[in-house]
Amino acid sequence: MSVEPLRVGILGATGAVGQRFVALLQSHPWFEIRRLMASERSVGKTYGDAVQWHLPGPIAPGLLEMPVTACHPDGGVLDLVFSGLPASDAVTIEPLFADHDIPVVSNTRSFRMDPKVPLVIPEVNAGHLDILPEQQAVCHRRGFIVTNPNCSTIALTLALDPLHRRFGVRKVLVSTAQAVSGAGYPGLSVMSMLDNAIPYISGEEPKLESEPRKIFGKREPDGIVPADMCISACCTRIAVRDGHLMHVSMTLDGRPGRDEIIACWDDYRSDIHDMDLPMKPARSVEYTDIPDRPQPYLDRDRGRGMTVTVGRLRECPVLGWKCVVLSHNTIRGAAGGAILVAELLVRKGILPLAPGSR
Amino acid sequence: MSVEPLRVGILGATGAVGQRFVALLQSHPWFEIRRLMASERSVGKTYGDAVQWHLPGPIAPGLLEMPVTACHPDGGVLDLVFSGLPASDAVTIEPLFADHDIPVVSNTRSFRMDPKVPLVIPEVNAGHLDILPEQQAVCHRRGFIVTNPNCSTIALTLALDPLHRRFGVRKVLVSTAQAVSGAGYPGLSVMSMLDNAIPYISGEEPKLESEPRKIFGKREPDGIVPADMCISACCTRIAVRDGHLMHVSMTLDGRPGRDEIIACWDDYRSDIHDMDLPMKPARSVEYTDIPDRPQPYLDRDRGRGMTVTVGRLRECPVLGWKCVVLSHNTIRGAAGGAILVAELLVRKGILPLAPGSR
Amino acid sequence: MSVEPLRVGILGATGAVGQRFVALLQSHPWFEIRRLMASERSVGKTYGDAVQWHLPGPIAPGLLEMPVTACHPDGGVLDLVFSGLPASDAVTIEPLFADHDIPVVSNTRSFRMDPKVPLVIPEVNAGHLDILPEQQAVCHRRGFIVTNPNCSTIALTLALDPLHRRFGVRKVLVSTAQAVSGAGYPGLSVMSMLDNAIPYISGEEPKLESEPRKIFGKREPDGIVPADMCISACCTRIAVRDGHLMHVSMTLDGRPGRDEIIACWDDYRSDIHDMDLPMKPARSVEYTDIPDRPQPYLDRDRGRGMTVTVGRLRECPVLGWKCVVLSHNTIRGAAGGAILVAELLVRKGILPLAPGSR
Amino acid sequence: MSVEPLRVGILGATGAVGQRFVALLQSHPWFEIRRLMASERSVGKTYGDAVQWHLPGPIAPGLLEMPVTACHPDGGVLDLVFSGLPASDAVTIEPLFADHDIPVVSNTRSFRMDPKVPLVIPEVNAGHLDILPEQQAVCHRRGFIVTNPNCSTIALTLALDPLHRRFGVRKVLVSTAQAVSGAGYPGLSVMSMLDNAIPYISGEEPKLESEPRKIFGKREPDGIVPADMCISACCTRIAVRDGHLMHVSMTLDGRPGRDEIIACWDDYRSDIHDMDLPMKPARSVEYTDIPDRPQPYLDRDRGRGMTVTVGRLRECPVLGWKCVVLSHNTIRGAAGGAILVAELLVRKGILPLAPGSR
Repeated sequence: MSVEPLRVGILGATGAVGQRFVALLQSHPWFEIRRLMASERSVGKTYGDAVQWHLPGPIAPGLLEMPVTACHPDGGVLDLVFSGLPASDAVTIEPLFADHDIPVVSNTRSFRMDPKVPLVIPEVNAGHLDILPEQQAVCHRRGFIVTNPNCSTIALTLALDPLHRRFGVRKVLVSTAQAVSGAGYPGLSVMSMLDNAIPYISGEEPKLESEPRKIFGKREPDGIVPADMCISACCTRIAVRDGHLMHVSMTLDGRPGRDEIIACWDDYRSDIHDMDLPMKPARSVEYTDIPDRPQPYLDRDRGRGMTVTVGRLRECPVLGWKCVVLSHNTIRGAAGGAILVAELLVRKGILPLAPGSR
Repeated sequence: MSVEPLRVGILGATGAVGQRFVALLQSHPWFEIRRLMASERSVGKTYGDAVQWHLPGPIAPGLLEMPVTACHPDGGVLDLVFSGLPASDAVTIEPLFADHDIPVVSNTRSFRMDPKVPLVIPEVNAGHLDILPEQQAVCHRRGFIVTNPNCSTIALTLALDPLHRRFGVRKVLVSTAQAVSGAGYPGLSVMSMLDNAIPYISGEEPKLESEPRKIFGKREPDGIVPADMCISACCTRIAVRDGHLMHVSMTLDGRPGRDEIIACWDDYRSDIHDMDLPMKPARSVEYTDIPDRPQPYLDRDRGRGMTVTVGRLRECPVLGWKCVVLSHNTIRGAAGGAILVAELLVRKGILPLAPGSR
Repeated sequence: MSVEPLRVGILGATGAVGQRFVALLQSHPWFEIRRLMASERSVGKTYGDAVQWHLPGPIAPGLLEMPVTACHPDGGVLDLVFSGLPASDAVTIEPLFADHDIPVVSNTRSFRMDPKVPLVIPEVNAGHLDILPEQQAVCHRRGFIVTNPNCSTIALTLALDPLHRRFGVRKVLVSTAQAVSGAGYPGLSVMSMLDNAIPYISGEEPKLESEPRKIFGKREPDGIVPADMCISACCTRIAVRDGHLMHVSMTLDGRPGRDEIIACWDDYRSDIHDMDLPMKPARSVEYTDIPDRPQPYLDRDRGRGMTVTVGRLRECPVLGWKCVVLSHNTIRGAAGGAILVAELLVRKGILPLAPGSR
Repeated sequence: MSVEPLRVGILGATGAVGQRFVALLQSHPWFEIRRLMASERSVGKTYGDAVQWHLPGPIAPGLLEMPVTACHPDGGVLDLVFSGLPASDAVTIEPLFADHDIPVVSNTRSFRMDPKVPLVIPEVNAGHLDILPEQQAVCHRRGFIVTNPNCSTIALTLALDPLHRRFGVRKVLVSTAQAVSGAGYPGLSVMSMLDNAIPYISGEEPKLESEPRKIFGKREPDGIVPADMCISACCTRIAVRDGHLMHVSMTLDGRPGRDEIIACWDDYRSDIHDMDLPMKPARSVEYTDIPDRPQPYLDRDRGRGMTVTVGRLRECPVLGWKCVVLSHNTIRGAAGGAILVAELLVRKGILPLAPGSR
């Protein structure tokens, strides 16, 4: 599409999400990795020496040899950075890049709930990017920060979007079984997870109870008004490498029948339905009627990890309907989702920033 | 207590639940294993040869050498049999024993919802044993069948009982993460569970939605009237050996505060509170305030596997309150629970049947 | 290459190895799946209904709808069948196909040690296919059986071949840690493998001690004389999905230095070095100097699962040298290896059988 | 035995080995925990607050409330300390205690190969404690350091001892599959171990190749002369919680038959055969003839974790004989083994040091 690929940097390039960014961007048609940035510990080493690579499949030789640099805007022109930083670092580093007119697409939680920062799932709320000019104006900069939701939020919100558009979702009770890759690397000790599960993930339940409301929120003159939706989340960590699984019970407006609901997923027309974006899967949400699916091992890679799989729709005696949702947490739920946001920015003409703008 | 131990048999003695019966009964002060019964495949072998033992710890030498016999009442006097049979066999074999005046304490689902058959958790509804005379009368026999609930039902119902006694529980949404031992042996393939989870367990959700209502039901002249409680269950199998974990959201009558609810668990006076029974744990339900507990590996053996652990009580935006519950599924949730029922029968004088009665 | 793809059938198409055959052949440039054959239980169903698919990634729609037929040569012309049958079935079914002039490339153990049947790893002993005319003559048929070695044998033999060509390998002591997929589906119970390992695999050690000697054997006028090599094998099953890992200690002729040995792997010129075969990986054996590699999760997919990875070469105080070997057991070690054999048969002009020959 | 229990301290009390010391000592008849010592991070907290307890089963209330103190000899009389320190700390802290006349039984590698320090498995080389007076003399102190071997060494050496006494073991090739608890807590990331194995454990192979030679060494006037035994070790980490499994191939002097070898294990008379020591299992080594045993999950707890299980004795085409060995790595292989050493010191009258000696 764009004649010349955009020059991108990765913040937190050696971490778990950073590695996924590298794996997905190393052969991306629109983006070219120009800078790999990480903490002091890694600076000065080549990426190959600095990273404890834990994905199957090789790193491109050119990247293996690329020197890791500090997380600082200096050091050569970049059209965009992707951030997989820890939240404690992101809070100061991401604005630094934006202030230097380098747009940031962030997978970190730090600015997700900031009213000036769009929290975007391209299929669901592409329109929320409209608040970027306000962010640029208020912050007196051409750069900006766009955020990607929490991995579980993405799965839940994408699964609900087709129903919410059609019927309105009022109450949601979601119980997750989340993969260990969500805790990063090294993350959890094998001593904690072998023959075990942990019914608590720090900070996860509040995110899952608030982020979807912002994403489903309405663009009003003075910002985004959170959707009127009541969500309760229960989060558990289980010994699965990738793929967050969740049971969702919900109350819909109206009294739709089972076939009508499944038709929503089958016929889903998202905000990017007609766009041609490299990371966009053939289907963003897919309903399966196999009785014991979706399952992490079998379904997480559907649509190259970008498709959310839904199954087991049945009546819920308490809330109305219930179903099972699965999504790849480090592709759709993190790096892949963020790249899709960046592609949308390109398609909308927001990226690259106009020449002379920096 | 009883001068002479009761002579017990085990139906399905080589299976997963049968092995737990053997492990727990081989040194029981009141019961003595006199017969090990299994399917044709095992009959004629010694128990040591017939069983694929998968519990750590040894089998008593006397049992290793005991010949396995067919699942038939003939073959020597028994005061009681415990049944760990598959449901398809239990439906004919268990009544056969009862008809031969041998009481059956069954861990199988076959007769749980039969109105003449008590479905008992000793702490919760010891009084339901009162319907046994009706069963004996209707079936024209001195023998009888008493059943133990499903493993998940036991965990949920015990956790709710202290709250239900005090406040009344109206709505429950429970989402489980269940151990693989619940599927028996060989049960699930390692190919299905390694780096995976399965959000479906055949028949489990209906049991969990109906059994607690019978257990909490009221003894009326014409039988037990199910409690007015609405339950929705979502069941997932995870790669944990023992210990079912569940997130429970619930609506209570009244508007109790957090401390009041925790006090219910701390001060729980169950139906067997004052009884001295060998399998009864020091505490049937225990609340922990460690933020990431209960966990299967760390908490399943609490009270020698007979204590249900509850944690993480917090407000649920949708239903009112939510918490986490854990219980050992093959001890409290199967063999241990059934043995506790048998102990209650002894303590109440129902077992052994009066001499001359057979 | 061949103008028209060969028409192939798969014996045991619903099993673990059969599924790998389907996955690898559904987009193969030379072979086209024409028949899916399995046991009585599956006959009459579509493949989609008959198979319990346990690989990630989809089955081609055309195959999903293909009816499963019995394991019998009737039912339409085939140029070749791949067999993933259990040994007990293979012993009668495979000769039946050969007798009907349908060549069989078998992954089953039944005929591996038969002196008339080549046991082939294309890189190592392509020349052993020369005994096929003798097999055809002795058996009075145009069809034939060629076999693929045991999964562990393939890994070991490929790793040793470069050293054996250059120095001669005299003694080998190999200790394996093998993946559960090697036991098929359902294969092993999760109850047997969770938090456990089993230091015994039925029949595996004898295969690993004898098959490499036949593969390294010399073609003499009266058959293949096994190599003069003494092998001792110790086999363990561990909770890994795919990828057999092995520690190998060995005595080489001469007194090569470490660099010389590594150079053998780096410069390996196999029997198919100059051939262009679709399943052939860029490198059949690859040495890594990362200290804690190879590892199953990180290295099994190297070369699309067809590359054997070797690492940790160091002196062995007892036998001389030791190293670590890893190979994907169901791709290189089973279906992929068998397909490579079939490709070699095509390249050598042995397949398809000359027209009129059937 | 001793009228008054010895007052013991634990160095590194919050670590993985330290927790095992606490678990095993909290109800020990001869030893009473008087001090729990750990790094600065924990000092000042109660043990309950400082420790991330990862063993099932509770900590005694008295210990939960005990304040953690620094690793320093001041702070009240101790008869003995057990050390589970990291090697980097042990190298300075352990001598400090010995210099203050507090004997140290250490599970750390730091001083194992020191010629003045006994490296002891009570069953195998109780006599090596005779070099303690030399250590005391050379170091000018009444205190001393005694060490416990590496966890794998203990399993291997105990399994070989009965054969070495009778026949002499000349060559050993051992390949291990080791549990993750050996790496401590947090130790290995679950990302590294899930669906994976690592064929490398830093420092492990050299220990396993050298320590048994010292343990089997002969007490000569000028020290202990290592046994003339050639050992090669290959070490792999697998996803098992506890229990190191190993395949052992060996060359024995003479030409014993299979029954003779098994008889060595059955009739083993160790150095402590006639002693009554609380941690001593009924059998230190036990041979099983079940074909697929020993297995970590099923056999690690044999003899309360203190029995080494041997199985699968068969001929090795390369070295003569081979078998499988299993031992609980954090009980027999660490804390339990060290406690047994301390018990031997008491039984031999070496502990407590004579009054007035400090």
